Amino acid sequence: MDERSARRLRLQSKMKEAGIDVCVITQNVDLYYFIGSMQTGYLFIPAEGEPVYFVRRSFVRAREEADVAVEELGSMRGFGSRLAEAFPRQFRKRDGEKTVVAAEYDVLPVQLFQRLEGALPGARWVDGSMLIREIRMIKSAAEIIAIRESARVIDMAYEAALSALKEGMPEVGLMAVVESVIRHNGHMGLMRVRGYNQEIITGMIGAGAAAATPTYFDGPAGGEGLGPASPQSSGWRPIGTGEPILIDIGCCIGGYVIDQTRTAVIGELPDDLRQAYELSETVLRETEARLMPGTICEELYTAALEQVRAAGLSDHFMGFGADQVKFLGHGIGLEIDELPVLARGFRYALEPGMVIAIEPKFTFPGRGVVGIENTYAITETGFEKLTVSREGIAVVPRYGSRVVQQ
Amino acid sequence: MDERSARRLRLQSKMKEAGIDVCVITQNVDLYYFIGSMQTGYLFIPAEGEPVYFVRRSFVRAREEADVAVEELGSMRGFGSRLAEAFPRQFRKRDGEKTVVAAEYDVLPVQLFQRLEGALPGARWVDGSMLIREIRMIKSAAEIIAIRESARVIDMAYEAALSALKEGMPEVGLMAVVESVIRHNGHMGLMRVRGYNQEIITGMIGAGAAAATPTYFDGPAGGEGLGPASPQSSGWRPIGTGEPILIDIGCCIGGYVIDQTRTAVIGELPDDLRQAYELSETVLRETEARLMPGTICEELYTAALEQVRAAGLSDHFMGFGADQVKFLGHGIGLEIDELPVLARGFRYALEPGMVIAIEPKFTFPGRGVVGIENTYAITETGFEKLTVSREGIAVVPRYGSRVVQQ
Repeated sequence: MDERSARRLRLQSKMKEAGIDVCVITQNVDLYYFIGSMQTGYLFIPAEGEPVYFVRRSFVRAREEADVAVEELGSMRGFGSRLAEAFPRQFRKRDGEKTVVAAEYDVLPVQLFQRLEGALPGARWVDGSMLIREIRMIKSAAEIIAIRESARVIDMAYEAALSALKEGMPEVGLMAVVESVIRHNGHMGLMRVRGYNQEIITGMIGAGAAAATPTYFDGPAGGEGLGPASPQSSGWRPIGTGEPILIDIGCCIGGYVIDQTRTAVIGELPDDLRQAYELSETVLRETEARLMPGTICEELYTAALEQVRAAGLSDHFMGFGADQVKFLGHGIGLEIDELPVLARGFRYALEPGMVIAIEPKFTFPGRGVVGIENTYAITETGFEKLTVSREGIAVVPRYGSRVVQQ
Repeated sequence: MDERSARRLRLQSKMKEAGIDVCVITQNVDLYYFIGSMQTGYLFIPAEGEPVYFVRRSFVRAREEADVAVEELGSMRGFGSRLAEAFPRQFRKRDGEKTVVAAEYDVLPVQLFQRLEGALPGARWVDGSMLIREIRMIKSAAEIIAIRESARVIDMAYEAALSALKEGMPEVGLMAVVESVIRHNGHMGLMRVRGYNQEIITGMIGAGAAAATPTYFDGPAGGEGLGPASPQSSGWRPIGTGEPILIDIGCCIGGYVIDQTRTAVIGELPDDLRQAYELSETVLRETEARLMPGTICEELYTAALEQVRAAGLSDHFMGFGADQVKFLGHGIGLEIDELPVLARGFRYALEPGMVIAIEPKFTFPGRGVVGIENTYAITETGFEKLTVSREGIAVVPRYGSRVVQQ
């Protein structure tokens, strides 16, 4: 069976378990995952039977791309009765019994939801987002191949960044170097993120104090950004000597995202920051040692907390003070904020096919952020490290290969 | 009075007219517009009295940025009673009377909405998105200055693209040139868009048939894109000789977006496409002639339709066949899809401070898209053209300045 049919069957089987009659999928990434097309429309997947993709635009393109039946959406008036015809088993219930319809409550805007509610007065609506996210959590071999390709490209960009890194250049200038490499290699221009209001372009290159500036962004390092209208990630701050340069970057090739972090310095890092960096590598190695099917996600997080506490760096771990985030890593695939999360409350046991970015980092307000991040696929016997960039602090000599003018 | 206080007063006055007691604002761009900060949280603006910004993260940064009272959000349990204390006039109603609360239904995800509903059981919820979008429709002098700066930067990028344009290079390679210029000049990395599932990085550079490929994107030209996981905008297609190259690009500096289109060619365009391009300039000039306070938005669209019909190009205008879009232009500012829209049903009279991208384009399936797009500010007496790039078809000689190897 082809991969997308298998995904839809997994969804249908979960729907039956959960007592859901129909799933309506509207978000571009979820659409792509289930049918290979992200044109504007509604995908209806019944618990039993064949799905129908009702498309507003572009119908022509949806028919080329999608591997399910495609119909023109047309007017919302009468849409309810079209659905009843298309899915008689689901929508023709006995008196008083309602059709249970699930939607992606985590991303679906209220306006669109109310339009759907209006078209289906006989439905009882439930949140289907966890169900979809849990299916997407387990990657196929083909998905992992796609992430490997993103890993290869981001490594080229990392090396390009190191070769371009010069004292005094702004963070955003170094980011532009990274972006040029990945774009020429087919990066789509941003890393998709599911969370409301979250924006990620290429991650964050942050130098010294700027990297330690807290932000709304749901990650351990925020960044000063370009100003209050874009208050995160890289900004205008000139990169200085002897301060940590956090190079937290990723790209999205063929729809799949990679996420990695390295720490660089022009000249030399102060001893305590170097030691904190080394602790981040130690935490990563310890985490790797437990990275195998059966390990409970939250235990990876609590073990890391314990290690960091023993080293006396708890206050600096994954942000500082009130702005600390409470996780060690996150699933990644078509989006950067997938399941599982390595955090308290996530009781998933690791399974082959999970892909997780693990990112121990230490924040020093006024001084910077150090750390490392690799993306891993869980295998039958342990893990495959998908990230290929060399580890360790990347040291760029102060004057490098530049001719020093007198 | 400072600008943001004035914006909030305009909102409060509209709220009173509409019978809304409280507005809760959650979207990053709306937050930035009203209080200068886009940290994660809820901004409550009462119809009368002072707003409070309840922030989850980063509280520290919100306090630096926002010009209203900032409080830590804390637990959602008890949030209702905190609100009742903060806004006694709004939340302590007589028996049976509900507090009318407006939210951004066009962007707010259902999950977050239901969390807010749960915290405020005594509220009657209404959609506040049009109200907010109508306030944002009228730009201040400072906002127009910001858009002028984006216009200056995108013009540099356009010239860089022309200088880099060579036969055989992929569309995405030319786009990478544009992106490098704008990023080095402070572009935030994407052009923000409000519409669900809509993604715009830098617009679209599309060559020949690729530009005419329809997509889900709500604009006249779609593009082949990089594949079904990113099925719009620039792709791998090599740019050829004698075909239209649509350079529809923008950037976002200091939060404000510009949007412009130019048509280029290596060698020469076929006569009919050249004539279609000339018609797009004619339509633009005719539209400019009506661009002044008092003109009704939809009349600009219907007048353009009439002009195009007279020239016999209706089938090609703003897309082709079923994939035609039904507008001539769109408001632009912090987001690319603002009010007003130049389309049927938009009865707004033009007002000083409106900023509109006007984009007559003609699509020829299998051959390409030609057209032009400028962004204009409406003034007391007419308009200011914010776009500064030179008009006309940009002709690049076939071999240009390259040394032809034997």
